[in-house]
Amino acid sequence: MSNSKLFMFEKPLGMRDTLPSLYEAKQNVKNTMTAEISQWGYQFMETPTLEYYETVGEASAILDQQLFKLLDQQGHTLVLRPDMTAPIARVAASRLLNEGYPQRLAYSANVFRAQQNEAGRPAEFEQIGVECIGDRSISADAEMIALLVALLKNTGLSTFTVAIGHIGFLQEIFLDIVGNEERAATLRRYLYEKNYVGYREHVKNLPLSSIDKKRLLSLLTLRGDSSNIELAKEVLDGDAGKKAVKELEQLWTMLEAYGVAEFVKLDLNIVSHMSYYTGIVFEAYAGNIGFPIGNGGRYDKLFQKFNREKSATGFGIHLDRLLEAKGVKKAEVKIHGVLFSQERREEAIAFATSKREAGEKVIVQDIAGVENVDACTASFSEVTFFLGKARKESEA
Amino acid sequence: MSNSKLFMFEKPLGMRDTLPSLYEAKQNVKNTMTAEISQWGYQFMETPTLEYYETVGEASAILDQQLFKLLDQQGHTLVLRPDMTAPIARVAASRLLNEGYPQRLAYSANVFRAQQNEAGRPAEFEQIGVECIGDRSISADAEMIALLVALLKNTGLSTFTVAIGHIGFLQEIFLDIVGNEERAATLRRYLYEKNYVGYREHVKNLPLSSIDKKRLLSLLTLRGDSSNIELAKEVLDGDAGKKAVKELEQLWTMLEAYGVAEFVKLDLNIVSHMSYYTGIVFEAYAGNIGFPIGNGGRYDKLFQKFNREKSATGFGIHLDRLLEAKGVKKAEVKIHGVLFSQERREEAIAFATSKREAGEKVIVQDIAGVENVDACTASFSEVTFFLGKARKESEA
Repeated sequence: MSNSKLFMFEKPLGMRDTLPSLYEAKQNVKNTMTAEISQWGYQFMETPTLEYYETVGEASAILDQQLFKLLDQQGHTLVLRPDMTAPIARVAASRLLNEGYPQRLAYSANVFRAQQNEAGRPAEFEQIGVECIGDRSISADAEMIALLVALLKNTGLSTFTVAIGHIGFLQEIFLDIVGNEERAATLRRYLYEKNYVGYREHVKNLPLSSIDKKRLLSLLTLRGDSSNIELAKEVLDGDAGKKAVKELEQLWTMLEAYGVAEFVKLDLNIVSHMSYYTGIVFEAYAGNIGFPIGNGGRYDKLFQKFNREKSATGFGIHLDRLLEAKGVKKAEVKIHGVLFSQERREEAIAFATSKREAGEKVIVQDIAGVENVDACTASFSEVTFFLGKARKESEA
Repeated sequence: MSNSKLFMFEKPLGMRDTLPSLYEAKQNVKNTMTAEISQWGYQFMETPTLEYYETVGEASAILDQQLFKLLDQQGHTLVLRPDMTAPIARVAASRLLNEGYPQRLAYSANVFRAQQNEAGRPAEFEQIGVECIGDRSISADAEMIALLVALLKNTGLSTFTVAIGHIGFLQEIFLDIVGNEERAATLRRYLYEKNYVGYREHVKNLPLSSIDKKRLLSLLTLRGDSSNIELAKEVLDGDAGKKAVKELEQLWTMLEAYGVAEFVKLDLNIVSHMSYYTGIVFEAYAGNIGFPIGNGGRYDKLFQKFNREKSATGFGIHLDRLLEAKGVKKAEVKIHGVLFSQERREEAIAFATSKREAGEKVIVQDIAGVENVDACTASFSEVTFFLGKARKESEA
């Protein structure tokens, strides 16, 4: 019993309540984004919170220890969805398979990542995102970045940057120089952790020629404006490197056509934690939030897990981080309180109905149900009383 | 591995995808309802999907076997929230405790109930609901029913009925006649299952006087218009009975003041599955849906689980059942497709931007990314091509 009392008001690790004032602010930003996404022809859909581990848990590429797992009554392992890309791929590969392609799908959903300690990140958070499935052209990558910029601009975010990288380029240069996936993975991890000091140290100690070491170190400089794309050619001159560089050049031309080039920069050190990315990847940063407020990229292999060959790209925006970057704490909600006594109920209801029809938010409150009238009315932006015999008394 | 393949496209028992056309229809109905709820001064909030079993799982009064449970890394049992009333009570009893009362809170959230077989009900479904906390007056009960009627009317539902009962009345007559909670629970179960034949048989075989048997059987007739409230007085004449009857009489007067009396009927046989109800309860029915599309009632004891004394009432609407009752299958979404070739990208983007500003939903698609142009354009309500040298070709 005493153990039970400990948890009376507690929530599981990383779980949070969203109180009304923040909910309202969140909803405003969300509505702005979902409206814009719909205008770009993306169609929203929903998938279940629980999925089979074998289907979506494995495909999601989130670390196993970050998955919330449970057993169903048939003994199958279920997971709380850790992302929305794999579930949407499941649907696109099955029930939507006979629709025309490319398919443009969108979601606004909570995803789940088990956390290890109190100071950790949230274990449940909302993502708003899109997936463009079945379009191999770089135009689809450009559309992702243009849409991401449009969304961030529309939410009124004052300054932000979308950093653009290429996982194919990075993977190619690593394999080309260090020879196997295990060593490439070590290098990727340093970049993923943005531990550039560690990367330099590690590269210096590798048994490589000084030319190769120089190539690996010069990678770190491939960041900034689009002139760096030209420099990337010198670091990796094989076919795969040429292809990646050409894709980035095409992309930049397209981003200029969209008028969003001022919001982007090149960063060939981007390594997303999502292991399924294969081509152009990107991350949006704003304010002094240490983590991306949105990220995405091309994933051409994920559909193989569902026995399909489909090229796809997409991104997700981390709603809470966006709100944090905007500095949104709460929205003010104006509520008109109408307090009445028994005899004047009908008058109060009629008054409230007319105010609601005019767009106001109105509470109709029987004064007999109020313990403390001062505390009750304190939260209202305006108060009208229908009490006793008088026709109407009003107070601001 | 072969076992794994079985699950490639499958979802856990009772879990469903909501494809875009249905999502849109659902969203329209949801927006109508949340707007009305806000206008009545209710403030939306969110609580986590996962809660401690000790906190919310036990308080929720959903059968244990219907809870999705999992263990966290600290060994605590977590549940996927089976309803929203208990989580909101947790917040109202802690973080919102110093706000003025009554508090009017609202939610739009998925809740979870583990199902036992394929033909079962959904294991995850969306509820839209409200809670009015800290108002003991019958006015709060009346507001619940008036708001529920307003919501159902606004969604365009053609015919529906809100059946109103009183758990206090039912419990009092059962205890008065059969003497203990165990026997009362047996009677409640028959009514909960709407197994009136079984109820009659059971009553006939009880070791009771013929007068008491008649009283228990006459309960079944206490349904219909408000004239039945008078009859209820004869079945139970103790203080608790008088109180319940008086509450129902007050309620009916208030519902007339709200102008919603035509949508309600009395049904003193209502037994909700939620064991925490204590007073006036109600269920909304529409079309030929066998289950309530919405239900609620007064729960004056739930807050004791959080060490508070607060009277409260509320209701939830089962969104999928409401859509089913309305006969909503899907919404038609009109999307204008703009297909372009490389040279005319800027023209296509400018055209789409102006159309979007005018409120259209527009996809801009590089024709190089399309495998099958006919299949791609089939889904568009209108198509505009920007191809080759011509300035503009348009097709409907």
